[in-house]
Amino acid sequence: MQFELTSEFLERIKFAIETQEEVFLKATFEELYSEDIIPIFYELTPEQQKYTLSMLDIETIGRILINIETETRNQLFTYFTSTEIAVFINEMYSDDAADILNSLPIKNREEIIAHISDSEMALNINELLRYESDCAGGMMAKELIKTNINWNVKQTIEEIRKQAENIEKLYSIYVVDDEDILKGRVSLKKIILSKDKTAISEIYEPDIISIETFMESWEVSDIMQKYDLETIPVVNVQGKLVGRITIDDAVDVIKEQAAEDIQAMSGISSPVEEDDSIWKLAKARLPWLVIGMAGGLLGAAFMGLFETKLILIPAMAFFIPLITATGGNVGVQSSSLIVQSLANNDFITQSTSLRLWRVLIVAFINAFVICTIVILFVFLIGHPLKLAFVVATALFFVVILASVMGTITPLVLDRFGINPALASGPFITTFNDLLGLAVYFGIAGLLYAI
Amino acid sequence: MQFELTSEFLERIKFAIETQEEVFLKATFEELYSEDIIPIFYELTPEQQKYTLSMLDIETIGRILINIETETRNQLFTYFTSTEIAVFINEMYSDDAADILNSLPIKNREEIIAHISDSEMALNINELLRYESDCAGGMMAKELIKTNINWNVKQTIEEIRKQAENIEKLYSIYVVDDEDILKGRVSLKKIILSKDKTAISEIYEPDIISIETFMESWEVSDIMQKYDLETIPVVNVQGKLVGRITIDDAVDVIKEQAAEDIQAMSGISSPVEEDDSIWKLAKARLPWLVIGMAGGLLGAAFMGLFETKLILIPAMAFFIPLITATGGNVGVQSSSLIVQSLANNDFITQSTSLRLWRVLIVAFINAFVICTIVILFVFLIGHPLKLAFVVATALFFVVILASVMGTITPLVLDRFGINPALASGPFITTFNDLLGLAVYFGIAGLLYAI
Repeated sequence: MQFELTSEFLERIKFAIETQEEVFLKATFEELYSEDIIPIFYELTPEQQKYTLSMLDIETIGRILINIETETRNQLFTYFTSTEIAVFINEMYSDDAADILNSLPIKNREEIIAHISDSEMALNINELLRYESDCAGGMMAKELIKTNINWNVKQTIEEIRKQAENIEKLYSIYVVDDEDILKGRVSLKKIILSKDKTAISEIYEPDIISIETFMESWEVSDIMQKYDLETIPVVNVQGKLVGRITIDDAVDVIKEQAAEDIQAMSGISSPVEEDDSIWKLAKARLPWLVIGMAGGLLGAAFMGLFETKLILIPAMAFFIPLITATGGNVGVQSSSLIVQSLANNDFITQSTSLRLWRVLIVAFINAFVICTIVILFVFLIGHPLKLAFVVATALFFVVILASVMGTITPLVLDRFGINPALASGPFITTFNDLLGLAVYFGIAGLLYAI
Repeated sequence: MQFELTSEFLERIKFAIETQEEVFLKATFEELYSEDIIPIFYELTPEQQKYTLSMLDIETIGRILINIETETRNQLFTYFTSTEIAVFINEMYSDDAADILNSLPIKNREEIIAHISDSEMALNINELLRYESDCAGGMMAKELIKTNINWNVKQTIEEIRKQAENIEKLYSIYVVDDEDILKGRVSLKKIILSKDKTAISEIYEPDIISIETFMESWEVSDIMQKYDLETIPVVNVQGKLVGRITIDDAVDVIKEQAAEDIQAMSGISSPVEEDDSIWKLAKARLPWLVIGMAGGLLGAAFMGLFETKLILIPAMAFFIPLITATGGNVGVQSSSLIVQSLANNDFITQSTSLRLWRVLIVAFINAFVICTIVILFVFLIGHPLKLAFVVATALFFVVILASVMGTITPLVLDRFGINPALASGPFITTFNDLLGLAVYFGIAGLLYAI
């Protein structure tokens, strides 16, 4: 069912573009959804892309331009005049149009807007460009269907006929008063099932969830998910209806957030994909590698203080990876639980002390199990009991401390407005490595001194 | 805007339940969305929950039962008879009803179905129960609106009036032929904007994306996202229309997948939340801790072979954490990039050899930068040049090997149908610890032998 781009098919397309087989290309692209043309697009040169666009209808062009990566699009745009770009922009929803214009230099942006033939569209875009892209105002589209609370079903249907032209998907009709203040919604179903003369005020639902322009995009997506909404109306501070956001934008926010969290957890410092340039990939990975390395070198310097002890008991070195790895694993487990629970703030906000208390009990249970295994194992493979005891005691404290650190770090990051998922990344493992070494050598110093 | 449950409010509700303040409770709950009643629900005893349900209308009860956790629901159900449960079930969408019944023991399930008054609902549920919950058949609902391709707009509107009763949200109307074979869709907008006598065959869109009952839920959610669909029709192998899936179910799949990936990456072996029981939390964390520990002990045994070398050059021990941490960080970075790109299979499938080649170049760049820093640092803090050279050479190979392992592991896991995100978890760090130690001591053995 799902289209998959094979290299044979791609070669065929490229050949057809070279030899300008217009009939073949038009017929082929007509059978594909715009979403399936995009992967082909990425494999073409800008000139080939421009030629491909000339084979497509304006609607497909719009969907491709919206969904391709910003870099590819901006490069492609250098092959078009402002007037030509304005024609594409004119056919889009206002939110997509504003997003595309937002990614262009101000000079180009102004030129393109000046060439947009639909004055209402130009007005809408100018309004949307005022908002930051990560707030409700920046997510919303201006296209929506509304009716007046004082009208009846027949007047509403006439209004729908007028307004619906530009709207592909039509869910609910917003109800406003004479001042454009949002009063509620009436579903299309109700409109169809009611008689022409029925007053909107009789059939509308006043109980409607709306959001304000300044709300952050993650809040918008949280609300839409929580209440299972396909669209949500956006109002300004006066309560006037200014736009609407659809679920597909909220889904994008969810996916972006998940990708960001995973990137933060993996120690990748900027959003990259496997097929990005090698230099970009290397650059995104270096910062955390260097930080981790600095931690390792600090650890080396620290252990230098215990050189005489290591000469006496070289077997102590054997258990360094055990200590650091366990600290890292426990830290990542703890912090990712906190990150998850910060993301679903469904429950009563737990106090930090209650959180820590529960974390400590879990840590005690796990530390106990781990230490029992370790003390038996270390002793059984022939190390002196004292060493087994040192290793087990150190592990015990490492598990407890790593749990506490893993719990507190994301909470602190979150408090300062930093993505708490960073706490589950190399940060926590590097920090816990150092913590583990300090505990291990500290305990060894104490117990071997006896 | 968003409701937040405070402990004061919760205390007030609990008190009202104790003292049976019916009027207060009814008024309070009426102002809340069912999604906001759920967090309150979790704080009540089953008896209090049962009493709370009696204050609510049947629709709100349905939404609460669908959205609360399975454990809570099944415990609550022990306080109701099958007949009482059947009344709740009767008011739900068939997909939600089937999900709830699926989580009950077969005996209870059959009893409840026997008491469902609406025979069509019972039939629908029995059909849905046949499907696995993680395929399209298990996600779909039976409630949908369809029209015959040979009808006109007026007949369709009459049909909508008949069918729409049970459907809260109405998007598009599916078009089928006399054999119930899916032919396309017609939008409500088109219905409203067309004349009564217009034939459906003139206004319907034959070009419709549908899925088959056996498709896996992640495929369904991928397709809905990719093509921005709010609903998707489900057909059986004969092409007959059997149900439809809405975007909210697809969003649930996306969120579950993201949570699963993050859990796999953090070494948590079963889905848990911060507020689960302490025992459950400890149990979910132990398996990977023990595996990590086994790796650490294996590393210790391995290093035991090099005891004489460590006595001669105790400073070698200082750099163990640096080696293991760098290997771990590089491995997690590499594997999470592959996991991400496996998830968005938008591009032409790269051959494994091309992938590895690119990974190797990135690894060389990073290894070069890291080794330069390390060799300078180790030498500058006063260690012999030979040790600096051993550490840097080992790091170089560790970075290369960890990159390759981090790339291959998720690809292999994915090939065997295992969640590739597991490769970014403790698995890769444990394995890379051992790999790092082997490389480090191996190189030291070679170079110090010269």
